[in-house]
Amino acid sequence: MFKQVTIIGFGLIGSSLARAMKQHALAGKIICADMSRDVCEKVLSLQLADEVTTDLAKGVKGSDLVILCVPVGAMSAVADKIAGSLEPGVIVSDVGSVKKEVIKSLAPRLPKKSHLVPAHPIAGTEHSGPEHGFAELFHHRWCIVTPLEDSELQPVEKIVKLWEACGSNIEIMNADHHDLVLGITSHLPHLIAYTIVGTATTLEEDLKGEVIKFSASGFRDFTRIAASDPVMWRDVFLNNKDAVLEVLQRFTEDLTALQKAIRKQDGDYLYQTFKKTRDIRRAIIQAGQAN
Amino acid sequence: MFKQVTIIGFGLIGSSLARAMKQHALAGKIICADMSRDVCEKVLSLQLADEVTTDLAKGVKGSDLVILCVPVGAMSAVADKIAGSLEPGVIVSDVGSVKKEVIKSLAPRLPKKSHLVPAHPIAGTEHSGPEHGFAELFHHRWCIVTPLEDSELQPVEKIVKLWEACGSNIEIMNADHHDLVLGITSHLPHLIAYTIVGTATTLEEDLKGEVIKFSASGFRDFTRIAASDPVMWRDVFLNNKDAVLEVLQRFTEDLTALQKAIRKQDGDYLYQTFKKTRDIRRAIIQAGQAN
Repeated sequence: MFKQVTIIGFGLIGSSLARAMKQHALAGKIICADMSRDVCEKVLSLQLADEVTTDLAKGVKGSDLVILCVPVGAMSAVADKIAGSLEPGVIVSDVGSVKKEVIKSLAPRLPKKSHLVPAHPIAGTEHSGPEHGFAELFHHRWCIVTPLEDSELQPVEKIVKLWEACGSNIEIMNADHHDLVLGITSHLPHLIAYTIVGTATTLEEDLKGEVIKFSASGFRDFTRIAASDPVMWRDVFLNNKDAVLEVLQRFTEDLTALQKAIRKQDGDYLYQTFKKTRDIRRAIIQAGQAN
Repeated sequence: MFKQVTIIGFGLIGSSLARAMKQHALAGKIICADMSRDVCEKVLSLQLADEVTTDLAKGVKGSDLVILCVPVGAMSAVADKIAGSLEPGVIVSDVGSVKKEVIKSLAPRLPKKSHLVPAHPIAGTEHSGPEHGFAELFHHRWCIVTPLEDSELQPVEKIVKLWEACGSNIEIMNADHHDLVLGITSHLPHLIAYTIVGTATTLEEDLKGEVIKFSASGFRDFTRIAASDPVMWRDVFLNNKDAVLEVLQRFTEDLTALQKAIRKQDGDYLYQTFKKTRDIRRAIIQAGQAN
Protein backbone atom coordinates (compact mmCIF):
# COMPACT_ATOMS: atom_id res chain seq x y z
CA MET A 1 0.00 0.00 0.00
CA PHE A 2 2.92 2.32 0.81
CA LYS A 3 6.54 2.08 -0.22
CA GLN A 4 8.03 3.48 2.93
CA VAL A 5 6.24 4.62 6.09
CA THR A 6 7.75 6.69 8.90
CA ILE A 7 6.05 6.48 12.26
CA ILE A 8 7.10 9.33 14.51
CA GLY A 9 6.61 8.47 18.20
CA PHE A 10 6.72 4.75 18.91
CA GLY A 11 4.53 4.49 22.00
CA LEU A 12 1.48 2.30 22.48
CA ILE A 13 -0.32 3.55 19.36
CA GLY A 14 2.70 3.98 17.09
CA SER A 15 4.08 0.55 17.90
CA SER A 16 0.67 -1.11 17.53
CA LEU A 17 0.26 0.52 14.14
CA ALA A 18 3.72 -0.72 13.08
CA ARG A 19 2.80 -4.24 14.19
CA ALA A 20 -0.50 -4.11 12.31
CA MET A 21 1.15 -2.75 9.14
CA LYS A 22 3.74 -5.49 9.28
CA GLN A 23 1.14 -8.19 9.88
CA HIS A 24 -0.93 -7.08 6.90
CA ALA A 25 2.10 -6.18 4.72
CA LEU A 26 0.93 -2.60 4.20
CA ALA A 27 4.39 -1.02 3.86
CA GLY A 28 7.55 -1.96 1.99
CA LYS A 29 9.60 -0.52 4.81
CA ILE A 30 8.77 0.88 8.25
CA ILE A 31 10.95 3.52 9.86
CA CYS A 32 10.75 4.35 13.54
CA ALA A 33 11.63 7.98 14.29
CA ASP A 34 11.59 8.68 18.00
CA MET A 35 13.64 11.24 19.88
CA SER A 36 14.07 8.88 22.81
CA ARG A 37 17.15 6.68 22.47
CA ASP A 38 15.53 4.33 24.96
CA VAL A 39 12.46 3.82 22.78
CA CYS A 40 14.61 3.31 19.68
CA GLU A 41 16.57 0.57 21.42
CA LYS A 42 13.39 -1.19 22.54
CA VAL A 43 12.00 -0.99 18.99
CA LEU A 44 15.21 -2.51 17.63
CA SER A 45 15.26 -5.34 20.13
CA LEU A 46 11.56 -6.07 19.54
CA GLN A 47 12.15 -5.84 15.76
CA LEU A 48 9.17 -3.55 15.29
CA ALA A 49 10.70 -1.46 12.48
CA ASP A 50 13.18 -1.89 9.64
CA GLU A 51 15.16 1.18 10.67
CA VAL A 52 15.24 3.37 13.75
CA THR A 53 16.53 6.90 14.20
CA THR A 54 16.37 9.64 16.81
CA ASP A 55 16.76 12.21 14.01
CA LEU A 56 13.21 12.97 12.89
CA ALA A 57 14.24 14.91 9.76
CA LYS A 58 16.41 12.04 8.61
CA GLY A 59 13.63 9.58 9.46
CA VAL A 60 11.07 11.05 7.03
CA LYS A 61 13.35 11.13 3.97
CA GLY A 62 12.10 8.95 1.16
CA SER A 63 8.79 8.10 2.85
CA ASP A 64 5.44 8.40 1.06
CA LEU A 65 3.56 8.28 4.39
CA VAL A 66 4.50 9.91 7.68
CA ILE A 67 2.30 9.38 10.75
CA LEU A 68 2.75 11.48 13.85
CA CYS A 69 1.98 9.39 16.95
CA VAL A 70 3.21 11.91 19.52
CA PRO A 71 1.26 13.75 22.24
CA VAL A 72 -0.90 16.55 20.83
CA GLY A 73 1.30 19.20 22.45
CA ALA A 74 4.38 17.98 20.57
CA MET A 75 2.85 18.19 17.07
CA SER A 76 4.10 21.67 16.08
CA ALA A 77 7.67 21.01 17.24
CA VAL A 78 7.72 17.78 15.24
CA ALA A 79 6.31 19.55 12.18
CA ASP A 80 9.04 22.19 12.41
CA LYS A 81 11.68 19.46 12.55
CA ILE A 82 10.46 17.42 9.57
CA ALA A 83 8.95 20.04 7.21
CA GLY A 84 12.17 20.63 5.27
CA SER A 85 12.85 16.92 4.70
CA LEU A 86 9.44 15.71 3.52
CA GLU A 87 9.20 14.29 -0.01
CA PRO A 88 6.87 16.05 -2.51
CA GLY A 89 3.46 14.33 -2.52
CA VAL A 90 3.95 12.73 0.90
CA ILE A 91 0.85 12.04 2.99
CA VAL A 92 1.17 13.30 6.57
CA SER A 93 -1.27 11.93 9.12
CA ASP A 94 -1.53 11.76 12.90
CA VAL A 95 -3.40 9.87 15.64
CA GLY A 96 -4.11 12.76 18.03
CA SER A 97 -7.18 12.72 20.31
CA VAL A 98 -7.86 16.37 19.46
CA LYS A 99 -8.20 17.50 15.86
CA LYS A 100 -8.82 21.24 15.54
CA GLU A 101 -5.68 22.32 17.41
CA VAL A 102 -3.59 19.62 15.74
CA ILE A 103 -4.63 20.89 12.31
CA LYS A 104 -3.77 24.43 13.45
CA SER A 105 -0.33 23.17 14.53
CA LEU A 106 0.41 21.11 11.43
CA ALA A 107 -1.24 22.73 8.39
CA PRO A 108 0.74 26.00 8.29
CA ARG A 109 4.05 24.23 8.96
CA LEU A 110 3.90 21.53 6.28
CA PRO A 111 5.09 22.13 2.69
CA LYS A 112 2.46 22.88 0.02
CA LYS A 113 3.23 19.67 -1.88
CA SER A 114 2.34 17.44 1.08
CA HIS A 115 -1.15 16.12 1.93
CA LEU A 116 -2.36 16.45 5.52
CA VAL A 117 -5.00 13.85 6.47
CA PRO A 118 -5.65 13.93 10.24
CA ALA A 119 -7.08 10.80 11.85
CA HIS A 120 -7.92 9.54 15.30
CA PRO A 121 -8.04 5.80 16.01
CA ILE A 122 -10.24 5.40 19.09
CA ALA A 123 -8.23 2.67 20.72
CA GLY A 124 -5.79 2.37 23.54
CA THR A 125 -5.14 0.83 26.89
CA GLU A 126 -3.99 2.31 30.19
CA HIS A 127 -0.44 1.11 29.40
CA SER A 128 2.20 3.20 27.60
CA GLY A 129 5.32 2.38 25.63
CA PRO A 130 6.27 0.24 22.59
CA GLU A 131 6.41 -2.99 24.61
CA HIS A 132 2.66 -2.76 25.34
CA GLY A 133 1.49 -2.40 21.74
CA PHE A 134 -0.18 -5.20 19.78
CA ALA A 135 -1.36 -5.58 16.20
CA GLU A 136 -5.01 -6.22 17.12
CA LEU A 137 -5.45 -2.97 19.07
CA PHE A 138 -7.50 -1.41 16.25
CA HIS A 139 -9.72 -4.41 15.43
CA HIS A 140 -13.40 -3.47 15.37
CA ARG A 141 -12.58 -0.08 16.86
CA TRP A 142 -13.56 3.23 15.30
CA CYS A 143 -11.09 5.41 13.48
CA ILE A 144 -12.33 8.95 12.84
CA VAL A 145 -10.79 10.66 9.83
CA THR A 146 -11.13 14.46 9.73
CA PRO A 147 -10.12 15.75 6.28
CA LEU A 148 -9.54 19.47 5.76
CA GLU A 149 -11.95 21.42 3.57
CA ASP A 150 -9.41 21.54 0.73
CA SER A 151 -8.16 17.95 1.13
CA GLU A 152 -7.74 16.02 -2.09
CA LEU A 153 -9.76 12.84 -2.33
CA GLN A 154 -7.00 10.32 -3.07
CA PRO A 155 -4.82 10.84 0.03
CA VAL A 156 -7.94 10.67 2.23
CA GLU A 157 -8.90 7.40 0.58
CA LYS A 158 -5.45 5.98 1.20
CA ILE A 159 -5.63 6.78 4.93
CA VAL A 160 -9.12 5.27 5.10
CA LYS A 161 -7.87 2.09 3.42
CA LEU A 162 -4.87 1.94 5.77
CA TRP A 163 -7.05 1.96 8.88
CA GLU A 164 -9.56 -0.42 7.36
CA ALA A 165 -6.68 -2.80 6.66
CA CYS A 166 -5.76 -2.55 10.36
CA GLY A 167 -9.28 -3.72 11.22
CA SER A 168 -10.90 -0.38 12.07
CA ASN A 169 -14.35 0.95 11.24
CA ILE A 170 -14.14 4.37 9.62
CA GLU A 171 -16.12 7.52 10.34
CA ILE A 172 -15.56 10.78 8.47
CA MET A 173 -16.19 13.99 10.42
CA ASN A 174 -15.09 17.59 10.50
CA ALA A 175 -12.56 18.49 13.17
CA ASP A 176 -14.89 20.73 15.23
CA HIS A 177 -17.53 18.07 15.54
CA HIS A 178 -14.91 15.44 16.39
CA ASP A 179 -13.64 17.56 19.26
CA LEU A 180 -17.14 18.04 20.68
CA VAL A 181 -18.11 14.35 20.41
CA LEU A 182 -14.83 13.18 21.93
CA GLY A 183 -15.12 15.89 24.57
CA ILE A 184 -18.26 14.14 25.78
CA THR A 185 -17.37 10.47 25.23
CA SER A 186 -13.71 10.56 26.15
CA HIS A 187 -12.24 13.77 27.54
CA LEU A 188 -14.92 14.49 30.17
CA PRO A 189 -14.96 10.86 31.42
CA HIS A 190 -11.17 10.91 31.74
CA LEU A 191 -11.25 14.24 33.59
CA ILE A 192 -13.87 12.92 36.01
CA ALA A 193 -11.99 9.67 36.54
CA TYR A 194 -8.75 11.54 37.18
CA THR A 195 -10.59 13.75 39.66
CA ILE A 196 -12.28 11.00 41.67
CA VAL A 197 -9.12 8.89 41.85
CA GLY A 198 -7.16 12.03 42.68
CA THR A 199 -9.57 12.81 45.52
CA ALA A 200 -8.81 9.36 46.92
CA THR A 201 -5.06 10.05 46.83
CA THR A 202 -5.52 12.95 49.23
CA LEU A 203 -7.21 10.84 51.89
CA GLU A 204 -5.48 9.92 55.12
CA GLU A 205 -3.28 6.82 54.76
CA ASP A 206 -5.55 4.34 56.58
CA LEU A 207 -8.63 5.46 54.68
CA LYS A 208 -6.68 5.22 51.41
CA GLY A 209 -5.81 1.61 52.25
CA GLU A 210 -9.49 0.83 52.71
CA VAL A 211 -10.40 2.52 49.44
CA ILE A 212 -7.99 0.16 47.68
CA LYS A 213 -9.26 -2.84 49.62
CA PHE A 214 -12.93 -2.19 48.86
CA SER A 215 -12.42 -0.70 45.41
CA ALA A 216 -14.54 -3.35 43.69
CA SER A 217 -17.67 -1.61 44.99
CA GLY A 218 -17.50 1.04 42.26
CA PHE A 219 -14.27 3.00 42.62
CA ARG A 220 -12.27 0.44 40.64
CA ASP A 221 -14.19 1.20 37.43
CA PHE A 222 -12.65 4.69 37.43
CA THR A 223 -9.06 3.72 38.14
CA ARG A 224 -8.37 2.05 34.80
CA ILE A 225 -8.84 5.18 32.72
CA ALA A 226 -7.24 7.34 35.44
CA ALA A 227 -4.08 5.28 34.88
CA SER A 228 -3.73 6.59 31.31
CA ASP A 229 -0.64 8.44 30.10
CA PRO A 230 -0.42 11.80 31.95
CA VAL A 231 1.44 13.66 29.18
CA MET A 232 -1.04 12.62 26.53
CA TRP A 233 -3.98 13.68 28.66
CA ARG A 234 -2.43 16.95 29.81
CA ASP A 235 -2.13 17.85 26.12
CA VAL A 236 -5.69 16.76 25.34
CA PHE A 237 -7.13 19.11 27.97
CA LEU A 238 -4.86 21.99 27.01
CA ASN A 239 -5.81 21.58 23.34
CA ASN A 240 -9.53 20.89 23.58
CA LYS A 241 -10.18 23.49 26.25
CA ASP A 242 -13.39 24.99 24.86
CA ALA A 243 -15.27 21.74 24.25
CA VAL A 244 -14.12 20.24 27.56
CA LEU A 245 -15.11 23.31 29.58
CA GLU A 246 -18.50 23.35 27.86
CA VAL A 247 -19.39 19.73 28.61
CA LEU A 248 -17.90 20.08 32.08
CA GLN A 249 -20.33 22.93 32.67
CA ARG A 250 -23.28 20.69 31.77
CA PHE A 251 -21.92 17.93 34.01
CA THR A 252 -21.48 20.29 36.95
CA GLU A 253 -25.04 21.57 36.61
CA ASP A 254 -26.39 18.02 36.65
CA LEU A 255 -24.22 17.07 39.62
CA THR A 256 -25.35 20.13 41.55
CA ALA A 257 -28.97 19.19 40.90
CA LEU A 258 -28.37 15.68 42.29
CA GLN A 259 -26.51 17.12 45.28
CA LYS A 260 -29.48 19.35 46.01
CA ALA A 261 -31.86 16.40 45.69
CA ILE A 262 -29.81 14.44 48.23
CA ARG A 263 -29.71 17.40 50.61
CA LYS A 264 -33.47 17.99 50.28
CA GLN A 265 -34.16 14.22 50.43
CA ASP A 266 -35.96 14.36 47.08
CA GLY A 267 -36.19 10.63 46.41
CA ASP A 268 -38.36 11.04 43.36
CA TYR A 269 -35.80 13.18 41.53
CA LEU A 270 -33.05 10.67 42.34
CA TYR A 271 -35.15 7.73 41.18
CA GLN A 272 -36.14 9.38 37.89
CA THR A 273 -32.54 10.33 37.13
CA PHE A 274 -31.14 6.88 37.94
CA LYS A 275 -33.84 5.16 35.92
CA LYS A 276 -33.03 6.98 32.68
CA THR A 277 -29.36 6.01 32.67
CA ARG A 278 -30.11 2.29 32.38
CA ASP A 279 -31.38 2.81 28.85
CA ILE A 280 -28.04 4.21 27.66
CA ARG A 281 -26.24 1.08 28.85
CA ARG A 282 -28.73 -1.05 26.93
CA ALA A 283 -28.19 1.04 23.79
CA ILE A 284 -24.41 0.60 24.09
CA ILE A 285 -24.81 -3.16 24.43
CA GLN A 286 -27.15 -3.21 21.43
CA ALA A 287 -24.58 -1.20 19.45
CA GLY A 288 -22.05 -3.97 20.18
CA GLN A 289 -19.81 -1.64 22.18
CA ALA A 290 -20.18 -3.54 25.50
CA ASN A 291 -21.62 -6.79 26.78
CA MET B 1 -25.47 -24.21 60.19
CA PHE B 2 -29.07 -22.99 60.50
CA LYS B 3 -32.27 -24.98 60.84
CA GLN B 4 -34.49 -22.62 58.89
CA VAL B 5 -33.53 -19.40 57.13
CA THR B 6 -35.92 -16.75 55.83
CA ILE B 7 -34.64 -14.44 53.13
CA ILE B 8 -36.81 -11.37 52.79
CA GLY B 9 -36.47 -9.80 49.35
CA PHE B 10 -35.39 -12.22 46.64
CA GLY B 11 -33.58 -9.94 44.21
CA LEU B 12 -30.05 -10.30 42.91
CA ILE B 13 -28.45 -10.51 46.36
CA GLY B 14 -31.18 -12.48 48.15
CA SER B 15 -31.41 -15.08 45.40
CA SER B 16 -27.63 -15.39 45.13
CA LEU B 17 -27.42 -15.94 48.87
CA ALA B 18 -30.13 -18.62 48.66
CA ARG B 19 -28.23 -20.34 45.87
CA ALA B 20 -24.95 -20.23 47.84
CA MET B 21 -26.62 -21.53 51.02
CA LYS B 22 -28.14 -24.38 49.08
CA GLN B 23 -24.87 -25.21 47.34
CA HIS B 24 -22.99 -25.35 50.62
CA ALA B 25 -25.89 -26.93 52.60
CA LEU B 26 -25.94 -24.11 55.17
CA ALA B 27 -29.66 -24.26 55.96
CA GLY B 28 -32.09 -27.10 56.65
CA LYS B 29 -34.80 -25.12 54.92
CA ILE B 30 -34.86 -21.83 52.99
CA ILE B 31 -37.96 -19.67 52.91
CA CYS B 32 -38.47 -16.91 50.39
CA ALA B 33 -40.58 -14.05 51.74
CA ASP B 34 -41.18 -11.40 49.10
CA MET B 35 -44.17 -9.09 48.78
CA SER B 36 -44.07 -9.37 45.01
CA ARG B 37 -46.17 -12.26 43.72
CA ASP B 38 -44.15 -12.07 40.53
CA VAL B 39 -40.86 -12.65 42.34
CA CYS B 40 -42.37 -15.52 44.36
CA GLU B 41 -43.49 -17.26 41.19
CA LYS B 42 -40.06 -16.88 39.62
CA VAL B 43 -38.41 -18.26 42.76
CA LEU B 44 -40.76 -21.26 42.68
CA SER B 45 -40.13 -22.00 39.03
CA LEU B 46 -36.36 -21.64 39.51
CA GLN B 47 -36.60 -23.81 42.67
CA LEU B 48 -34.52 -21.34 44.66
CA ALA B 49 -36.36 -21.87 47.98
CA ASP B 50 -38.22 -24.62 49.79
CA GLU B 51 -41.21 -22.38 50.48
CA VAL B 52 -42.36 -19.02 49.17
CA THR B 53 -44.78 -16.53 50.66
CA THR B 54 -45.84 -12.95 50.09
CA ASP B 55 -46.77 -12.72 53.80
CA LEU B 56 -43.56 -11.59 55.52
CA ALA B 57 -44.84 -12.22 59.08
CA LYS B 58 -45.80 -15.78 58.18
CA GLY B 59 -42.48 -16.22 56.39
CA VAL B 60 -40.31 -15.62 59.47
CA LYS B 61 -42.13 -18.05 61.78
CA GLY B 62 -39.92 -20.88 62.98
CA SER B 63 -36.72 -19.45 61.48
CA ASP B 64 -33.49 -19.11 63.48
CA LEU B 65 -32.07 -16.69 60.88
CA VAL B 66 -33.85 -13.92 58.99
CA ILE B 67 -31.93 -11.86 56.43
CA LEU B 68 -33.39 -8.67 55.01
CA CYS B 69 -32.31 -8.24 51.38
CA VAL B 70 -34.59 -5.29 50.58
CA PRO B 71 -33.65 -1.72 49.60
CA VAL B 72 -32.43 0.32 52.56
CA GLY B 73 -35.55 2.50 52.50
CA ALA B 74 -37.83 -0.52 53.02
CA MET B 75 -36.08 -1.83 56.17
CA SER B 76 -38.30 -0.17 58.78
CA ALA B 77 -41.54 -1.20 57.08
CA VAL B 78 -40.31 -4.80 56.90
CA ALA B 79 -39.24 -4.71 60.56
CA ASP B 80 -42.71 -3.51 61.57
CA LYS B 81 -44.30 -6.37 59.63
CA ILE B 82 -42.13 -9.17 61.04
CA ALA B 83 -41.34 -8.03 64.61
CA GLY B 84 -44.34 -9.76 66.20
CA SER B 85 -43.67 -13.10 64.50
CA LEU B 86 -39.95 -13.55 65.15
CA GLU B 87 -38.87 -16.53 67.26
CA PRO B 88 -37.02 -15.81 70.54
CA GLY B 89 -33.27 -16.01 69.98
CA VAL B 90 -33.53 -15.43 66.21
CA ILE B 91 -30.63 -13.73 64.45
CA VAL B 92 -31.74 -10.88 62.18
CA SER B 93 -29.28 -9.66 59.59
CA ASP B 94 -29.39 -7.57 56.43
CA VAL B 95 -27.29 -6.82 53.32
CA GLY B 96 -27.84 -3.05 53.08
CA SER B 97 -25.21 -0.78 51.52
CA VAL B 98 -25.71 1.74 54.33
CA LYS B 99 -25.36 0.67 57.95
CA LYS B 100 -26.02 3.53 60.42
CA GLU B 101 -29.51 4.35 59.13
CA VAL B 102 -30.39 0.67 58.75
CA ILE B 103 -29.47 0.04 62.38
CA LYS B 104 -31.58 3.06 63.35
CA SER B 105 -34.49 1.57 61.40
CA LEU B 106 -34.18 -1.98 62.70
CA ALA B 107 -32.83 -1.91 66.27
CA PRO B 108 -35.77 -0.16 67.99
CA ARG B 109 -38.36 -2.24 66.10
CA LEU B 110 -37.03 -5.74 66.77
CA PRO B 111 -37.96 -7.70 69.91
CA LYS B 112 -35.45 -7.77 72.80
CA LYS B 113 -34.89 -11.49 72.47
CA SER B 114 -33.62 -11.23 68.89
CA HIS B 115 -30.02 -10.57 67.82
CA LEU B 116 -29.39 -7.91 65.20
CA VAL B 117 -26.15 -8.44 63.24
CA PRO B 118 -25.96 -6.04 60.27
CA ALA B 119 -23.74 -7.01 57.35
CA HIS B 120 -22.91 -5.75 53.87
CA PRO B 121 -21.63 -8.12 51.21
CA ILE B 122 -19.75 -5.95 48.70
CA ALA B 123 -20.90 -7.75 45.62
CA GLY B 124 -23.39 -7.20 42.89
CA THR B 125 -23.84 -6.69 39.20
CA GLU B 126 -25.77 -4.11 37.22
CA HIS B 127 -28.60 -6.63 36.79
CA SER B 128 -31.57 -6.95 39.16
CA GLY B 129 -33.99 -9.74 39.97
CA PRO B 130 -33.87 -13.38 41.14
CA GLU B 131 -33.13 -14.72 37.65
CA HIS B 132 -29.77 -12.89 37.59
CA GLY B 133 -28.42 -14.27 40.88
CA PHE B 134 -25.70 -16.92 41.07
CA ALA B 135 -24.07 -18.85 43.92
CA GLU B 136 -20.54 -17.58 43.21
CA LEU B 137 -21.44 -13.88 43.49
CA PHE B 138 -19.74 -13.61 46.90
CA HIS B 139 -16.57 -15.58 46.11
CA HIS B 140 -13.41 -13.67 47.11
CA ARG B 141 -15.51 -10.55 47.69
CA TRP B 142 -15.52 -8.61 50.93
CA CYS B 143 -18.37 -8.83 53.41
CA ILE B 144 -18.32 -6.09 56.05
CA VAL B 145 -20.02 -7.02 59.33
CA THR B 146 -20.95 -4.08 61.57
CA PRO B 147 -21.96 -5.41 65.03
CA LEU B 148 -23.71 -3.10 67.49
CA GLU B 149 -21.86 -2.05 70.64
CA ASP B 150 -23.95 -4.40 72.77
CA SER B 151 -23.98 -7.30 70.26
CA GLU B 152 -23.40 -10.73 71.78
CA LEU B 153 -20.40 -12.57 70.39
CA GLN B 154 -22.05 -15.81 69.28
CA PRO B 155 -24.59 -14.40 66.78
CA VAL B 156 -21.87 -12.24 65.24
CA GLU B 157 -19.68 -15.32 64.83
CA LYS B 158 -22.51 -17.21 63.15
CA ILE B 159 -23.02 -14.45 60.58
CA VAL B 160 -19.26 -14.31 59.96
CA LYS B 161 -19.20 -18.09 59.41
CA LEU B 162 -22.20 -17.89 57.08
CA TRP B 163 -20.50 -15.39 54.77
CA GLU B 164 -17.18 -17.20 54.96
CA ALA B 165 -19.00 -20.34 53.87
CA CYS B 166 -20.34 -18.38 50.88
CA GLY B 167 -16.74 -17.60 49.90
CA SER B 168 -16.44 -14.05 51.26
CA ASN B 169 -13.56 -12.37 53.08
CA ILE B 170 -14.73 -10.77 56.31
CA GLU B 171 -14.02 -7.31 57.70
CA ILE B 172 -15.45 -6.10 61.02
CA MET B 173 -16.14 -2.36 61.31
CA ASN B 174 -18.39 0.03 63.14
CA ALA B 175 -21.33 1.37 61.19
CA ASP B 176 -20.13 5.00 61.03
CA HIS B 177 -16.80 4.04 59.57
CA HIS B 178 -18.46 1.66 57.10
CA ASP B 179 -20.66 4.47 55.81
CA LEU B 180 -17.69 6.80 55.28
CA VAL B 181 -15.53 4.18 53.53
CA LEU B 182 -18.38 3.05 51.29
CA GLY B 183 -19.29 6.70 50.69
CA ILE B 184 -15.89 7.09 49.04
CA THR B 185 -15.44 3.72 47.34
CA SER B 186 -18.99 3.09 46.21
CA HIS B 187 -21.60 5.81 46.74
CA LEU B 188 -19.62 8.74 45.28
CA PRO B 189 -18.49 6.72 42.21
CA HIS B 190 -22.09 5.67 41.57
CA LEU B 191 -23.33 9.25 41.94
CA ILE B 192 -20.69 10.51 39.51
CA ALA B 193 -21.41 7.73 37.02
CA TYR B 194 -25.15 8.42 37.20
CA THR B 195 -24.44 12.09 36.62
CA ILE B 196 -22.16 11.71 33.62
CA VAL B 197 -24.42 9.17 31.95
CA GLY B 198 -27.39 11.37 32.83
CA THR B 199 -25.71 14.36 31.20
CA ALA B 200 -25.42 12.29 28.02
CA THR B 201 -29.15 11.49 28.08
CA THR B 202 -29.96 15.20 27.81
CA LEU B 203 -27.96 15.67 24.61
CA GLU B 204 -29.61 16.21 21.26
CA GLU B 205 -30.58 12.94 19.56
CA ASP B 206 -27.81 12.83 16.92
CA LEU B 207 -25.11 13.65 19.46
CA LYS B 208 -26.52 10.96 21.78
CA GLY B 209 -26.20 8.43 18.97
CA GLU B 210 -22.55 9.34 18.54
CA VAL B 211 -21.91 9.08 22.28
CA ILE B 212 -23.19 5.50 22.13
CA LYS B 213 -21.20 4.76 18.97
CA PHE B 214 -17.90 6.04 20.36
CA SER B 215 -18.52 5.05 23.97
CA ALA B 216 -15.45 2.79 24.11
CA SER B 217 -13.25 5.89 24.36
CA GLY B 218 -14.01 6.30 28.07
CA PHE B 219 -17.73 6.89 28.55
CA ARG B 220 -18.53 3.16 28.50
CA ASP B 221 -16.63 2.55 31.76
CA PHE B 222 -19.24 4.66 33.56
CA THR B 223 -22.35 3.14 32.06
CA ARG B 224 -22.08 -0.23 33.77
CA ILE B 225 -22.47 1.11 37.28
CA ALA B 226 -24.96 3.75 36.10
CA ALA B 227 -27.17 0.81 35.05
CA SER B 228 -27.57 -0.32 38.67
CA ASP B 229 -30.94 -0.65 40.38
CA PRO B 230 -32.46 2.85 40.73
CA VAL B 231 -34.53 2.07 43.85
CA MET B 232 -31.59 0.61 45.71
CA TRP B 233 -29.42 3.61 44.86
CA ARG B 234 -32.08 6.21 45.61
CA ASP B 235 -32.26 4.70 49.09
CA VAL B 236 -28.48 4.63 49.51
CA PHE B 237 -28.21 8.36 48.83
CA LEU B 238 -31.19 9.23 51.01
CA ASN B 239 -29.77 7.17 53.88
CA ASN B 240 -26.08 8.03 53.69
CA LYS B 241 -26.64 11.72 53.07
CA ASP B 242 -23.98 13.14 55.40
CA ALA B 243 -21.07 10.96 54.25
CA VAL B 244 -22.00 11.33 50.58
CA LEU B 245 -22.31 15.11 50.77
CA GLU B 246 -18.97 15.31 52.56
CA VAL B 247 -17.01 13.29 50.00
CA LEU B 248 -18.88 15.03 47.19
CA GLN B 249 -17.63 18.32 48.60
CA ARG B 250 -14.03 17.10 48.37
CA PHE B 251 -14.62 15.84 44.84
CA THR B 252 -16.13 19.14 43.72
CA GLU B 253 -13.19 21.11 45.11
CA ASP B 254 -10.75 18.90 43.21
CA LEU B 255 -12.79 19.13 40.00
CA THR B 256 -12.95 22.91 40.29
CA ALA B 257 -9.16 23.03 40.67
CA LEU B 258 -8.72 20.97 37.48
CA GLN B 259 -11.26 23.12 35.66
CA LYS B 260 -9.31 26.23 36.64
CA ALA B 261 -6.05 24.60 35.49
CA ILE B 262 -7.59 23.89 32.07
CA ARG B 263 -8.93 27.43 31.80
CA LYS B 264 -5.57 28.94 32.79
CA GLN B 265 -3.67 26.42 30.61
CA ASP B 266 -1.67 25.23 33.63
CA GLY B 267 -0.13 22.11 32.09
CA ASP B 268 2.10 21.41 35.06
CA TYR B 269 -0.82 21.14 37.49
CA LEU B 270 -2.66 18.81 35.11
CA TYR B 271 0.42 16.62 34.62
CA GLN B 272 1.16 16.33 38.35
CA THR B 273 -2.46 15.42 39.11
CA PHE B 274 -2.71 12.81 36.37
CA LYS B 275 0.63 11.28 37.35
CA LYS B 276 -0.40 10.54 40.94
CA THR B 277 -3.51 8.58 40.00
CA ARG B 278 -1.54 5.86 38.21
CA ASP B 279 -0.13 4.67 41.54
CA ILE B 280 -3.58 3.94 42.94
CA ARG B 281 -4.37 1.65 40.02
CA ARG B 282 -1.11 -0.21 40.65
CA ALA B 283 -1.97 -0.59 44.34
CA ILE B 284 -5.39 -2.01 43.45
CA ILE B 285 -3.80 -4.51 41.08
CA GLN B 286 -1.27 -5.47 43.76
CA ALA B 287 -4.13 -5.95 46.24
CA GLY B 288 -5.64 -8.45 43.81
CA GLN B 289 -8.75 -6.31 43.24
CA ALA B 290 -8.12 -5.75 39.50
CA ASN B 291 -5.82 -6.99 36.76
